[in-house]
Amino acid sequence: MSLPRNHWVLTFVCADLPGIVHAVSGAVVESGGNITESQQFSSSDTGRFFMRLQVESEAGREVFEAALAPVVERYAMDWRLDTVGRPLRTLVLGSTAAHCVNDLLFRRRAGQLPVEIPLVLSNHGVLRDLAGFYDVPFESLPVTSPESKAAFERRVLEVVEEHDIELVVLARYMQIVSPELCERLAGRMINIHHSFLPGFKGANPYKQAHARGVKLIGATAHFVTSDLDEGPIIEQNVVRVDHTRTPAELVAIGQDEESRTLTTAVTWFAEHRVLLDGARTIIFR
Amino acid sequence: MSLPRNHWVLTFVCADLPGIVHAVSGAVVESGGNITESQQFSSSDTGRFFMRLQVESEAGREVFEAALAPVVERYAMDWRLDTVGRPLRTLVLGSTAAHCVNDLLFRRRAGQLPVEIPLVLSNHGVLRDLAGFYDVPFESLPVTSPESKAAFERRVLEVVEEHDIELVVLARYMQIVSPELCERLAGRMINIHHSFLPGFKGANPYKQAHARGVKLIGATAHFVTSDLDEGPIIEQNVVRVDHTRTPAELVAIGQDEESRTLTTAVTWFAEHRVLLDGARTIIFR
Amino acid sequence: MSLPRNHWVLTFVCADLPGIVHAVSGAVVESGGNITESQQFSSSDTGRFFMRLQVESEAGREVFEAALAPVVERYAMDWRLDTVGRPLRTLVLGSTAAHCVNDLLFRRRAGQLPVEIPLVLSNHGVLRDLAGFYDVPFESLPVTSPESKAAFERRVLEVVEEHDIELVVLARYMQIVSPELCERLAGRMINIHHSFLPGFKGANPYKQAHARGVKLIGATAHFVTSDLDEGPIIEQNVVRVDHTRTPAELVAIGQDEESRTLTTAVTWFAEHRVLLDGARTIIFR
Amino acid sequence: MSLPRNHWVLTFVCADLPGIVHAVSGAVVESGGNITESQQFSSSDTGRFFMRLQVESEAGREVFEAALAPVVERYAMDWRLDTVGRPLRTLVLGSTAAHCVNDLLFRRRAGQLPVEIPLVLSNHGVLRDLAGFYDVPFESLPVTSPESKAAFERRVLEVVEEHDIELVVLARYMQIVSPELCERLAGRMINIHHSFLPGFKGANPYKQAHARGVKLIGATAHFVTSDLDEGPIIEQNVVRVDHTRTPAELVAIGQDEESRTLTTAVTWFAEHRVLLDGARTIIFR
Repeated sequence: MSLPRNHWVLTFVCADLPGIVHAVSGAVVESGGNITESQQFSSSDTGRFFMRLQVESEAGREVFEAALAPVVERYAMDWRLDTVGRPLRTLVLGSTAAHCVNDLLFRRRAGQLPVEIPLVLSNHGVLRDLAGFYDVPFESLPVTSPESKAAFERRVLEVVEEHDIELVVLARYMQIVSPELCERLAGRMINIHHSFLPGFKGANPYKQAHARGVKLIGATAHFVTSDLDEGPIIEQNVVRVDHTRTPAELVAIGQDEESRTLTTAVTWFAEHRVLLDGARTIIFR
Repeated sequence: MSLPRNHWVLTFVCADLPGIVHAVSGAVVESGGNITESQQFSSSDTGRFFMRLQVESEAGREVFEAALAPVVERYAMDWRLDTVGRPLRTLVLGSTAAHCVNDLLFRRRAGQLPVEIPLVLSNHGVLRDLAGFYDVPFESLPVTSPESKAAFERRVLEVVEEHDIELVVLARYMQIVSPELCERLAGRMINIHHSFLPGFKGANPYKQAHARGVKLIGATAHFVTSDLDEGPIIEQNVVRVDHTRTPAELVAIGQDEESRTLTTAVTWFAEHRVLLDGARTIIFR
Repeated sequence: MSLPRNHWVLTFVCADLPGIVHAVSGAVVESGGNITESQQFSSSDTGRFFMRLQVESEAGREVFEAALAPVVERYAMDWRLDTVGRPLRTLVLGSTAAHCVNDLLFRRRAGQLPVEIPLVLSNHGVLRDLAGFYDVPFESLPVTSPESKAAFERRVLEVVEEHDIELVVLARYMQIVSPELCERLAGRMINIHHSFLPGFKGANPYKQAHARGVKLIGATAHFVTSDLDEGPIIEQNVVRVDHTRTPAELVAIGQDEESRTLTTAVTWFAEHRVLLDGARTIIFR
Repeated sequence: MSLPRNHWVLTFVCADLPGIVHAVSGAVVESGGNITESQQFSSSDTGRFFMRLQVESEAGREVFEAALAPVVERYAMDWRLDTVGRPLRTLVLGSTAAHCVNDLLFRRRAGQLPVEIPLVLSNHGVLRDLAGFYDVPFESLPVTSPESKAAFERRVLEVVEEHDIELVVLARYMQIVSPELCERLAGRMINIHHSFLPGFKGANPYKQAHARGVKLIGATAHFVTSDLDEGPIIEQNVVRVDHTRTPAELVAIGQDEESRTLTTAVTWFAEHRVLLDGARTIIFR
């Protein structure tokens, strides 16, 4: 009679030293595991080493942790051990635009996005029906003043606490997040941002892009830092446009790129494929 | 006995008024022409009308011009009449990098690029053999001081005069062009520039792009204006990269994008497919 | 006091003869119209001429039709006159897969897809809630035998009759359509089909594609003809995949391509941008 | 005083068993090596395990081989040990088309393609000057009969023998290769082939693609097997085309895709990034 198999995903980050792979793989062998997927990268920028493993094993979490403990200690590793496919507890922040929220909820229901979403929290009420259709709780809190903004952010932290949230997704939330919240949620808050070649500062970038006649428009998903729209990039996409497109059409095209780029970034994060190397990301696709 | 057929390409730019298409097509009918390709665009930004026609006709240039004269006058048109496929007289300015010059010369020989190149002019001598292999005259003039730079630009204008040059291509020429030269060659000087999402200012952008972990790098071909790298965009391309790429690899990938983007822009320009609408281009592909 | 402006879209198809553009534009001028968008193409394959115009005018439909009548007769044109942006009456046929139907309904509600959908008709009931969320009537009829299939197709024709349907979309309907229905709905029934390089015949193409290690997978939207999956192509897209993808992941990736490719094809059709030239399509984007 | 560092690339293929990574990394540690790049893959299709390592070490080849010998024996591995960046000895077979040969030679000279090319062998003489410009020996042998074809293939094998050729590239060689030669050069002969969605059989596929109105055309680089154009796929690319393109333009566009796709495949092969898993390839990019 065969025992049930567990499927683990592990990530390790530490200073790059000889012998790490041998030590980690030794612990895997010791606990009877079989490596099904493995990626690693040595950053010559920061001197850090990054590794992601998927391992099948009959052993339970305790056996595994015991085998890895001396390795983790010896190399002073940041590490995680999780079950492959476990839905990540994710809080979605929205506003009025439906496209990104719809894409996330549709794919979650279709079983293509390994997240659970205990709440969509918005500064407007218009997405309530959409959330309802997908059986996701919805709450709206207006943000119209410094006080109401602070209240909104307190509610975010309450929800994060209450549901032990692992990822906060700004799905076109469209509000500047306070430095304090950025700090509290560093490395686990993802934003989506339109992107152009060249970039445009200031209001109505689609109108600027139209005026300049850009031929490519796109979107960038990135971690949120207090340096607005400048956090580490997770994923980018572009599509081709031409001179016949109105600013309104550019907006519609840009929204498609935003949806698919954000959903891709969330998927990779939920699968523990996104690791931080200073100002940039390592993506183990 | 059938007469030889001419194949004409015409472009018209004027204020957008009713009846233009009817008037132009009337002149074409009157001179016995048959329209084989036609594109038009009304710019709601500038209120200007743009049209490009290809017309087959047994009539010679004089017949054609006579039929069009009243239309052109009535609508105060900027217009051009040329033969389809006539090689455009093109001056290529290079420096040390071979990739863009090689791509232009290879495609010209392969019959895919409708240009003739009476000279490659460079501020270094390293591209001499490449030009020689493709039987294109080559000249180098060092640019090492304000005086030698002025001399180089005087030589550019001499060559433009002497060969009645219609297009100047900066094929990684890598020198800032003086405002005077920009002015003199406005609308007929094309540059190629690397492009990133987001953009980077200052030295060594590939190193900056690496440090920031960008996922897309590309190139932009644009008209040269005195506002550095900010002229009207003709064509853009990007490719996907990831965290494993070294800055040197990013450079190699970027060079491929530069070559193909510049060659595309030159092809469209030589085919009279690029028209200026204020700060942006109309591309009749 | 300014009169309300109408915005018309016109398409013309006829044998390619001199003077067509002049004649059509003359009728536009005569009825006080201003051309805002215009595309034309002469097919050297079939000797046919294709034209699409958008025209703003204060004139009503009758004035317009009267002005065009002699032109249309003289050149024996197939032609259409419609209002820009009028929602096309569209019947969606589904089965069990939700991705294409969801994309169509979401974009219709978002105002990005100019169709009205009086019914989603399916051979299964699983899409009922999805249709309900988007307030679209839904009906299911099982197809399990030649008789029930014939009944399903009779119901299709009834709905087409009853709602004066202009477009039938097979949104992963997954049933072979009878030659009779293909004939009845020729030129107004669109299907979406996965696409691979190279192509694969027979069952489970994603499994075959995996076994062969293809690097690109995609989708093709095409008109339905009795020659299965061989009708004129409207739009195609591909994405890159690699050896790590399981057949199930290939399916998910392929579904995204199917959704966006079908939606694009429907949009272009609804905007009268798709014209037939023998076995191929002219797309006036 | 620091010793010179060697940079090794290693590939391993064997039945997938527990402990392989640990055993290999142990040998690396034992010989003082540091892993700079590592990829692995377990094929659930064939039950085989694939690994590619880059290792920096002061140790010479003998030390390395000695450390790895017991591991290699224990797991019955197919394996290779090579120096990173060593130019692969490559024979290029051409015919009349210049585009693929030009791209390979240009990039080799630019230092972007890690190959040395002792000979371009062609069944026509037209590429002689091109090879000469790049200082690559050239030889032509007409193929006009079964006898001359056999002579050509004997010459191929002579050159392979004489120069210890590691890779044969069919750069638009355009002749069917005999089953015997396929067999002799199995796994080290790469071809480039145009690709369409859908595929087309028979003569003049670009004309067929035009007639069918395909929207994407591309190229596939694959290993040559006796099953014509059906060998394991290494790389594929496509680009978008539309109804205005003539068959001649489709050919030019297709040639660009052929050049870049073939060059990419050769680069990956030369860097030992291409491994065979039955009918498909593992690409460790």
